Formats: sequence, structure tokens, C-alpha cells
Amino acid sequence: MSLFDEIKRNLADEVLCAVATVLNGERLGAKILAYPDGRVSGDLGDAALQTQVVHDALRAMQIEQSENCVYGEMQVFIDVFAPKPKLIIFGGVHTAIPLTRFAQALGFRVTVVDGRSRFATRERFPTADELIVAWPDEVIAQTRTRIDSSTYIAILTHDPKFDIPALKALSTTNAPRYIGAMGSRETRKQHFAELRASGVSEEFLSRVYGPVGLDLGARTPEEMALAIIAEILAVRRGRSGGFLSAAEK
Amino acid sequence: MSLFDEIKRNLADEVLCAVATVLNGERLGAKILAYPDGRVSGDLGDAALQTQVVHDALRAMQIEQSENCVYGEMQVFIDVFAPKPKLIIFGGVHTAIPLTRFAQALGFRVTVVDGRSRFATRERFPTADELIVAWPDEVIAQTRTRIDSSTYIAILTHDPKFDIPALKALSTTNAPRYIGAMGSRETRKQHFAELRASGVSEEFLSRVYGPVGLDLGARTPEEMALAIIAEILAVRRGRSGGFLSAAEK
Repeated sequence: MSLFDEIKRNLADEVLCAVATVLNGERLGAKILAYPDGRVSGDLGDAALQTQVVHDALRAMQIEQSENCVYGEMQVFIDVFAPKPKLIIFGGVHTAIPLTRFAQALGFRVTVVDGRSRFATRERFPTADELIVAWPDEVIAQTRTRIDSSTYIAILTHDPKFDIPALKALSTTNAPRYIGAMGSRETRKQHFAELRASGVSEEFLSRVYGPVGLDLGARTPEEMALAIIAEILAVRRGRSGGFLSAAEK
Repeated sequence: MSLFDEIKRNLADEVLCAVATVLNGERLGAKILAYPDGRVSGDLGDAALQTQVVHDALRAMQIEQSENCVYGEMQVFIDVFAPKPKLIIFGGVHTAIPLTRFAQALGFRVTVVDGRSRFATRERFPTADELIVAWPDEVIAQTRTRIDSSTYIAILTHDPKFDIPALKALSTTNAPRYIGAMGSRETRKQHFAELRASGVSEEFLSRVYGPVGLDLGARTPEEMALAIIAEILAVRRGRSGGFLSAAEK
């Protein structure tokens, strides 16, 4: 398959990738295609340059930002093709309603999953892109290939009966970009101990955000939803969430 | 006017206040009414106790949270009556549209102000509680008494022609709970120098949040609006905005 065919397929399949093109000199027009897991198609014909470019392409994909890079006299444009971000909410609870609305306003495709049919309904989620009545672990097993670095996951069920199987199932998938799980520090500790005991890796657990959300002092479901979507955006862009003006204060 | 009449009037006028009531002992039922500026009506009949209670009432009003306090053997309930928060947006720009939506979802009453009649329209802001076609400084001069500790102000015009008169006019009002002003660090520096030269106090300037919003890496108007409303909630609740899970990481 040619590089162009591969790029075309990535766009059709909504796969995050970066195309790096040399803009000047002898190698003008040389291209590689890089993926978040480090895979590379094509060759720039200069091993040292390629190592640097791949490194910068990985960072560019991390923050989903195209970039014009200069390496000595070489200029390389790293063009990031980022699919629409997807949010999967486990638990059609009250907080999921404003979270769906906020996430869609920010351009996310939103799926709401709940095993209890009275929760994942069109009445409660009139705008959701997808409603799935099933248990978290079933859904995760089925959609394994669809969980990728553009997928964000919020586990709002707040019940070990659902949360623990969901986290366990997620630990066996491709890494989503974000996993947040509702619950106090105490709940988190208990759940994590149980997950560790059943063989889930420390590395996976360290990537789970909990207590979920930015520290906004959220009290209502709407405020919780705001704290979660703000955290998701901060993670997506690799930022700290603190006050932008803090440096001046 | 009796304490009860004063409380009733505060509720009708949407004035933030706290009623502290002694719950036990000899002074059972003794009450005072406290305001964010330190004014107090009534008397607990114990100067040392009253000083402590007023101190705690001020803090409770700050975070708008009622509280049961214990002072030695005395128990005092501090009941905070917080009016609906109000957001005044100066500048009917694109970011103001999702900001109105997000703020209303969180229970804010939203007023959009713009001197340019094609900006502050019902077509652009179908749900806004109030649309005012006027220049910021005119509006501020007229509504001076309505700006209080439940008022949050976002200046989105991003144009010194509007921003500087708006900030100057705000510096002469009751202190709003929050003022955020769009613009880079550089713009901020220039505007502040001009405001200082025209006699605006350092204390006022230190309370203006700019660059506005939490550090979420916002790029689109929707993302800017999210960063601003998240900052407003963090300020309202006296929180840092950082990751709640950070302590565990």
C-alpha cells in the first residue's frame, strides 16, 4: 500500500496519525507517516533526521497540533490528522446528562452505556450520538478495537459492581486517552486493591483519574460534569488546569 | 427593623447574608445577621463568641456553604442565604454564545452587554436572561448597585476601546466576586499601565483574572468558554482548579 493510500485509509477509519513532509533542500517532498504507538511508514532517507522528526511527531499527536519544525537547515511540516474525539460514559446517571451536553458542545462524539434500560434512554439523553443498554465489560469487550488514543472514558456508575469489571475490561484494551472514575479517595483505594489482586498492572491504575475532575468545588451534577469535561480538555491538551493568571498573582 | 424583617428583605432583594443562630445553652435561639462586608445586625450577647462567629460567617459566605460550628460547648448554626449567581458578559462575541449556555446550565443568570447592536441579539443569544445594547461603562454606571459579591464579570470584547473603560468603571463599583478579562499577558500589561496612570488602584487590578480562564489549552470559542466558566466555579468555591487526583499521582 502506498503512503497516500495509507493516509486515505486512516482518514476514513478515523485513526490518529501525523504526516511529516520535508519542505526544502535535497529531500524536498520526502514524507513519513507516524502513529502514536511509534510505528512509522515511509523513510526520510536520513536516519538522524527521522529519529528527531518521529520524536516531534509523537509530541504533536499528543497535543493534536500540527507544527512547522526546523532542524538545522531542514524544514519539516508535521501535519496531525486527529479524528473527532469520542467520549464513552459508563452510567446514565444524572451527571451524565449535562456531561453529554458539554462534551457535544466541545465537538465530542458521545456514547452513553448503562446496563439498566431505564437509565440509557432517549428521554434522558435526547442528543447522545449513541445509547447502549449493556454492562460496561460487555461493551468494552465488543468495541475493543474502537478504543484508541482519541477515546475518553468517564465511569460514573459509582458502584463497585459496575466500576471494577469496567476498569478490569479496560485494562485489556488499547489505551484510551483518558479514564476517569467517580468516587472518593477511599473508594478508589479499595477498588484499586481489588483490581491489583486480580492482576491489573500498576501502570494501568496510575493512568486512572480519580477522584475524577478538576478541583472546582463541584457540588451539583452540572458542576461535576463541568469539572470532568474541563479535566478531559486539560488532559487532551497536556495542561495543568490551574489559573492561567496565576503567574501574575 | 427587626432581624426577621431584615432577613426577609435580603431574600427579596437577593442579598448575600448569613444568619447565625445559637443552638444550645443559655443563649439558645440568639441570632445575628452578617454581611460579606463585615456589617452585623443583632447581638449574641457574648463579645468573644460573636467575634468568632462573624469570622466563620464571613468564610461561609465566601464559599456559599452553610455550616454547623462548635465553639467549646456552644453550638452555632451559620445559615448562608446566597442569591442566584449572576454572570455579566461584556462583548457579544462568539465565545459569549457557549459561555451563556454553560453558565445557565450551572444556574447562573446571564446578561450579555454589547454596544454594537448586531452582536447582542436574540438570534445569537436566544436563552440569555438579559441582553443590553450599550457600552460597558454606561451599563456599569447604571447598574452600580446591582454589582455585588454574587456577580461575576467576563470581559470578552478584547479591544482596549471597550476593555479599559469597562475596567475603569468597574473599579468604582461594589466589588464583584470575579472579573476576568480576555487578552494575552502582553495586552494585560499595557491595559494595566494605562489604568494605573488614570488612578485605578493596585488592589483592584490584582483582582482581575487575565489571561482569563483555567489552563486547559483552549483553542476554539467553545473551549475558551469552558475554561472561563470552570475558572468562575473554582473562584466561587475557593478552589485551585488543578487535578483532584494529583495527590495520588
